[in-house]
Amino acid sequence: MSRFIRKDLLGLTPYSPGQQPEEEMIKLNTNENPYPPSPKAADAIQKISTDDLRLYWDPEASEAKNAIADHYHIESSRVMVTNGSDEALAFAFHAFGEKICFPEITYSFYKVFAGAAGSHAFTFPLKKDMTIDIKDYKGYPATVILANPNAPTGKALCREQIREIVLSDPDRLVIIDEAYVDFGAESCIPLVKKHDNIMVIQTMSKSRSLAAMRIGFAVGSREIIADMNKIKYSFNPYSMGPFAAAAAKAAMEDEEYFRKTTTEIIKTRELAAAGLRDLGFEVVPSKTNFLLVSGGREYFEKLKERKILTRYWEEDLLRNWVRISIGTPEQMEKLLEATKEIICEKVK
Amino acid sequence: MSRFIRKDLLGLTPYSPGQQPEEEMIKLNTNENPYPPSPKAADAIQKISTDDLRLYWDPEASEAKNAIADHYHIESSRVMVTNGSDEALAFAFHAFGEKICFPEITYSFYKVFAGAAGSHAFTFPLKKDMTIDIKDYKGYPATVILANPNAPTGKALCREQIREIVLSDPDRLVIIDEAYVDFGAESCIPLVKKHDNIMVIQTMSKSRSLAAMRIGFAVGSREIIADMNKIKYSFNPYSMGPFAAAAAKAAMEDEEYFRKTTTEIIKTRELAAAGLRDLGFEVVPSKTNFLLVSGGREYFEKLKERKILTRYWEEDLLRNWVRISIGTPEQMEKLLEATKEIICEKVK
Repeated sequence: MSRFIRKDLLGLTPYSPGQQPEEEMIKLNTNENPYPPSPKAADAIQKISTDDLRLYWDPEASEAKNAIADHYHIESSRVMVTNGSDEALAFAFHAFGEKICFPEITYSFYKVFAGAAGSHAFTFPLKKDMTIDIKDYKGYPATVILANPNAPTGKALCREQIREIVLSDPDRLVIIDEAYVDFGAESCIPLVKKHDNIMVIQTMSKSRSLAAMRIGFAVGSREIIADMNKIKYSFNPYSMGPFAAAAAKAAMEDEEYFRKTTTEIIKTRELAAAGLRDLGFEVVPSKTNFLLVSGGREYFEKLKERKILTRYWEEDLLRNWVRISIGTPEQMEKLLEATKEIICEKVK
Repeated sequence: MSRFIRKDLLGLTPYSPGQQPEEEMIKLNTNENPYPPSPKAADAIQKISTDDLRLYWDPEASEAKNAIADHYHIESSRVMVTNGSDEALAFAFHAFGEKICFPEITYSFYKVFAGAAGSHAFTFPLKKDMTIDIKDYKGYPATVILANPNAPTGKALCREQIREIVLSDPDRLVIIDEAYVDFGAESCIPLVKKHDNIMVIQTMSKSRSLAAMRIGFAVGSREIIADMNKIKYSFNPYSMGPFAAAAAKAAMEDEEYFRKTTTEIIKTRELAAAGLRDLGFEVVPSKTNFLLVSGGREYFEKLKERKILTRYWEEDLLRNWVRISIGTPEQMEKLLEATKEIICEKVK
């Protein structure tokens, strides 16, 4: 730390991204998609003229924005494309996060965003079964942000439950972070069309296999999206380039590939969950591309010894769990085999 | 504006990027490089495996960071690569901008960054000849940010003048924004090696023809760069993708192409400046890839009628000027021809 930093930032603890392994490992730690992006996205990227890279690009990434708007049958003025959904979340905390509440267990970045934005943040515990208790959020006088499905639990609220939260106070904004929604949960984008106090944020990092391209988007009322753009144009107007915009458009339009790969991941998830339960593990029912599995540090370490990288959190509420991203069927087979080995070793 | 936005942001006026023309025009309005990026950057981009885009990328963009560190003979822990230099500037205002001062005429985004970061901002007028008066900044009790060369004047301070500002108070940070430094001014990166209260920010958008790729970087003490990273990891850790990182590395290493194109632009600039002066215009001596030329709104409009787009600002101190980016020799020929026509028309 230098002697020049703002005093109010001294206590800020930044986010720690999941570890990127140096050696060859089965990487089930950052909820990446095991399948490559749509071949149409790859084609679109190849077609970009590198000569044109000398020019500033369309700061709205309009081609991506319009493809998203078309996909969800919503006007493009109600969509904003961002440099990853983290950027959209950061803008949202800065724009609307003066007072904000979220679950005690959720995407751990929310606490960091709140710190950086100087928000007054409040958290509510989850219920015993790890679901969000919607009673806590109904009418609570602060902006609400919920990951749905939630991370790292994998559990989702249904759209009607979120509608109840939205309806409980029309003068308060509800932000739904749908990073994992495409793996079996209900999107709240239909609610955005009916209510002006909800914004939905999604990413193409998971279900569309474009983590490296940094593509997120927000959908809300025209006014909310204008506010989000106000923050963007006060921070980094040209945050996306032509490669991301072209890949986003193509990936959004390739519905067939999207359905095929997400269906495959859901199938693999259910098989892996059943396999782990058979081995005696507790597995939280998931609507995402990861599983929260009992076992804690020991299981995490033993998997790591066997070159399988998962995610473990030291903190109290999660210390007995391990989060395992869904890989290919072959990778999940290896996970189950390794798990059997670990169990046998313990018995000996 | 929605009813949900933070009240302290109500007065924030975002930055207005230069217009991107819909029709075919000679585009001399956003200081883009008229030459394509290094062929080596184009090659490096082609080599990226699109299959790997499913994975989160190295958030440090290490290959780019190391190439920059090598180029400037500085340790890589003193370099940070950002999603355009605007991102580096935004982080700098958030990290160090509690109290900050800059010239009254400079990159107009500084005022916006200050507003978004809640900074107390102070401005000093330029001298009559449009140079920065270093006396104003010596010992002034606030972080200093100077664009050097300054925009949109094009005038530069020499390194020794900046050293004087740096030395005048070792407990205060001086930030030098060198977006245009490669077109004839002296970089202050050598000062960073000797003094721990200066940070230099550069971009690959201008001299390395990569505006669309969003590549900026900051060079400072290890502690200052750690502070900058603290902001980054509290905002958007994965802000760069593999295309930008590969292009940045290759562009940084292709010294020959860089020298050839920047030398050409400097030559074109001097010819254009002489031509405009011959026609009776006042032209501020420039160390950048643009010229500040007398003429104001009328000249701007008349050029626009002739399909030449330049940049004009309504505000008092700049209303008698037009900023003209340096294009190819052919484009500048056309500018001079159009200017002659405009003069002849006026005489009639």
